[in-house]
Amino acid sequence: MKIEAAKTHSLRLKRLGIDSRNEHLVFMRRDCPECKSEGFEALNRIRVSTENNEVVASLVVVDGINILGQNEAGLSEGAVTKLQAREGDVLTFSHLKSLDSMSDVRRKVFGNALDQDAFTRIIEDIVNLNLSNIQVSAFLTACAGDRLNLDEIVYLTRSMIDSGQRLHWKTDEIYDKHCIGGLPGNRTTPIVVSIIAASGLKIPKTSSRAITSPAGTADMMETLTNVDLSVAQIEKIVDEEGGCLAWGGAVQLSPADDILIRVERALDIDSEGQMIASVLSKKAAAGAKAVVIDIPVGKSAKVRSMKDAERLATRLCSTGESIGLFVEPVITDGSQPVGRGIGPALEAKDVLAVLKNEANAPRDLRDRAVSLAGVLLEMAEKTKKGMGRGIALGILESGSAWEKFKRICIAQGGLKGPPEAEFRREIAAYKDGKITAIDNRRIARLAKLAGAPAAPAAGILLNVSIGDAVRSGEKLFELHAMSEGELSYAFDYLADNRDLIRIER
Amino acid sequence: MKIEAAKTHSLRLKRLGIDSRNEHLVFMRRDCPECKSEGFEALNRIRVSTENNEVVASLVVVDGINILGQNEAGLSEGAVTKLQAREGDVLTFSHLKSLDSMSDVRRKVFGNALDQDAFTRIIEDIVNLNLSNIQVSAFLTACAGDRLNLDEIVYLTRSMIDSGQRLHWKTDEIYDKHCIGGLPGNRTTPIVVSIIAASGLKIPKTSSRAITSPAGTADMMETLTNVDLSVAQIEKIVDEEGGCLAWGGAVQLSPADDILIRVERALDIDSEGQMIASVLSKKAAAGAKAVVIDIPVGKSAKVRSMKDAERLATRLCSTGESIGLFVEPVITDGSQPVGRGIGPALEAKDVLAVLKNEANAPRDLRDRAVSLAGVLLEMAEKTKKGMGRGIALGILESGSAWEKFKRICIAQGGLKGPPEAEFRREIAAYKDGKITAIDNRRIARLAKLAGAPAAPAAGILLNVSIGDAVRSGEKLFELHAMSEGELSYAFDYLADNRDLIRIER
Repeated sequence: MKIEAAKTHSLRLKRLGIDSRNEHLVFMRRDCPECKSEGFEALNRIRVSTENNEVVASLVVVDGINILGQNEAGLSEGAVTKLQAREGDVLTFSHLKSLDSMSDVRRKVFGNALDQDAFTRIIEDIVNLNLSNIQVSAFLTACAGDRLNLDEIVYLTRSMIDSGQRLHWKTDEIYDKHCIGGLPGNRTTPIVVSIIAASGLKIPKTSSRAITSPAGTADMMETLTNVDLSVAQIEKIVDEEGGCLAWGGAVQLSPADDILIRVERALDIDSEGQMIASVLSKKAAAGAKAVVIDIPVGKSAKVRSMKDAERLATRLCSTGESIGLFVEPVITDGSQPVGRGIGPALEAKDVLAVLKNEANAPRDLRDRAVSLAGVLLEMAEKTKKGMGRGIALGILESGSAWEKFKRICIAQGGLKGPPEAEFRREIAAYKDGKITAIDNRRIARLAKLAGAPAAPAAGILLNVSIGDAVRSGEKLFELHAMSEGELSYAFDYLADNRDLIRIER
Repeated sequence: MKIEAAKTHSLRLKRLGIDSRNEHLVFMRRDCPECKSEGFEALNRIRVSTENNEVVASLVVVDGINILGQNEAGLSEGAVTKLQAREGDVLTFSHLKSLDSMSDVRRKVFGNALDQDAFTRIIEDIVNLNLSNIQVSAFLTACAGDRLNLDEIVYLTRSMIDSGQRLHWKTDEIYDKHCIGGLPGNRTTPIVVSIIAASGLKIPKTSSRAITSPAGTADMMETLTNVDLSVAQIEKIVDEEGGCLAWGGAVQLSPADDILIRVERALDIDSEGQMIASVLSKKAAAGAKAVVIDIPVGKSAKVRSMKDAERLATRLCSTGESIGLFVEPVITDGSQPVGRGIGPALEAKDVLAVLKNEANAPRDLRDRAVSLAGVLLEMAEKTKKGMGRGIALGILESGSAWEKFKRICIAQGGLKGPPEAEFRREIAAYKDGKITAIDNRRIARLAKLAGAPAAPAAGILLNVSIGDAVRSGEKLFELHAMSEGELSYAFDYLADNRDLIRIER
């Protein structure tokens, strides 16, 4: 240690306003004595210290004086925050010694199973941004597909739970709900939460914003109320109302997940084990005792075959059991979008219609939500097996779910109406026939091109479902957008993708 | 394609002087309309175009106005060069569509063997920097250890050959030499090249600079002559003198290698297949017909057991055969450093002493070089099996190797004397006894702490070998440095590492 201290160097912080997300960056001039004497070069991992704090950052070498003066070094904003540093503060630099967690990653790369301690070291270093994106990528690649055995999935789940915050409750009777995703418009969460909370159970639901979809539950709920709640607010609202519908990002449950997901997206690689750990760690950290998991199966859903769904269901249950979480997977039809709206505000309207028991409320959304709520009621032993659905439907039809939803929204900061899109365009059937398929992925892409989720009123309002007979010229769906440009961009996409709704004679 | 064009956006280039090496970076303000409307976010891969060129870059989001003005975007310097762009030029942006090569990488990640076309796509995209470091990391991880079968190693080798330049010769009789490395001071190359060229054969040797060692052959040769030669210069010098001793970096043989190595270093993961492909692709691209490969084996060398060495030798031969390259592996003793000097100038002195047949020239260096040259003479059928060594020794002892070395240096730009270190310190034995081990890795680390290779005169001058008897206080080695600070830094390291030369009674 003495030696490393002797060999540190110092420069003054220049803030550059750079957001590098997963990985801290340090910007140093090639001609600075620190770079030259230490042999620092691009991609090197460097320990950067102020008097009281330190971070690990990847070096970006800067030539010339465009952005850094003599004796200046730049840091990405995340590093500035973590160091609690201010412009002009003295920074010192030293080579990062090899990390124990990378020895673990290498063991996994070479095909060895890891133990609990190894996963703990890896996840801790990921959360603290001690691993670079390159290193996280190696970890994810080594865990890709089915390369984690059941024990390893449990270890990973536990280490992800321990790496973040946890919610605390006065009771153990905490319930939760999750959907594996990939099905546009499948916005059952607000309905399930309202029914369950109305039944007297506790369901502290945190949801994500859209990652690759046109709307996450948090995006949809944000068109109706505030979703950015602190841990204390969530705990208070759930104690009082039985449920909440909050954005999960602010509460840092299982924070490794965000970092892993960003790298997974860059690779477009799924790891079943990592996905299971990600889902269950968030539920466990939220304090849940039991969780119902919707697994939609369809050709263009995330899970494509019954075989995959059953395998996933089994592994979710076993992992849940190992960490003390009662998991009930529900395999559902993922052949087409759910409800009519796709996009934050359009989905919110479907949800409101179901909650208000409106005559034209989408039946499929209502059925799915009631079924999932029924499973939770049975898990909570509120009723006998097979009776949950009926009780859930009763709570919905009585209006008490709608009352509960309003109370939750008011507790979160008030209930407002969803926004309306200014720019709309009807898309008509190009021939007579019957709707035989709807491509979830391309429908989602289309809604995103129209502006969802950044433009909350943007998206798609479907007028047809699989099995419907249509005549040429009849409306298939409406495109909604918040700008003319986005509307026409989405419309252009349709030129080559007319078959995203397949019509056959 | 029409759509993508419709959705592009433009900003003006601001140069930031940033060197991001393996991966182009584009810096955009979070508040720019392009980021907002396209939903660009950190780590996204973006196609950046000027009127005539385009590159793929990873997005770094910038907040505030510290480094970018309204309507400005920054690019790393590599991207500026590739786009041939100038400050203020208009840049347009669009999302990168998914790359075919990443589908191949994913197939490999999921355990499938890849074919020639897949490796060609991957290596082309790596060389063109279309893959991010995150993606290259996934590729390397998927190929780590022994995950490439023999066919795949051949495919990878071929695609690496095809991705770069090739040297062209008037004859097929081109020879080459390689060392797997990890053995400090094992600087046989200049001696082998001089003997082989003096024998009338052609040996266009390109060498790397140090990656993790205290000296590469190019660093060592640079203390004696110019090594930065163009392809045309190499071809002319080898045509005239039979050999050269050039730095490989300028000639872009197998350029994927540099990119892969930088990511491998960040992971500290070896892939045997990738290493074989890297070595053989460079030799094949240099036009070699036959190559002798030195594989030093020792506890602290790169290859640690005879079993590993034999396996590697077999795979080198099979891969060579498949690409039409005659490979002769020579497994050698890697238990201790070779020669006396470690560091560019100190190794150069050893090489000169051997070439000049000086009485005190290091015997081990001479023996190793003569053996390797002998194998090449036999491969070239200049002599019968078993006679090569004697002929090589004759060429060395006659002085014609030294004459040839001088002529090559003069052709490369002139022969100069190696620099001398101003700061030196003797390290003495701490007890009586016999030298029983020398740790190659820690000796290399010590030489690097003393400043090698950046400080060319820095390094270590060994006074002992394994088996020598020493008395307490007797000189073990000298530390050489070009600054007082580096000398004392290296000396400090010794405090905890006295046993890097083990003395036992």
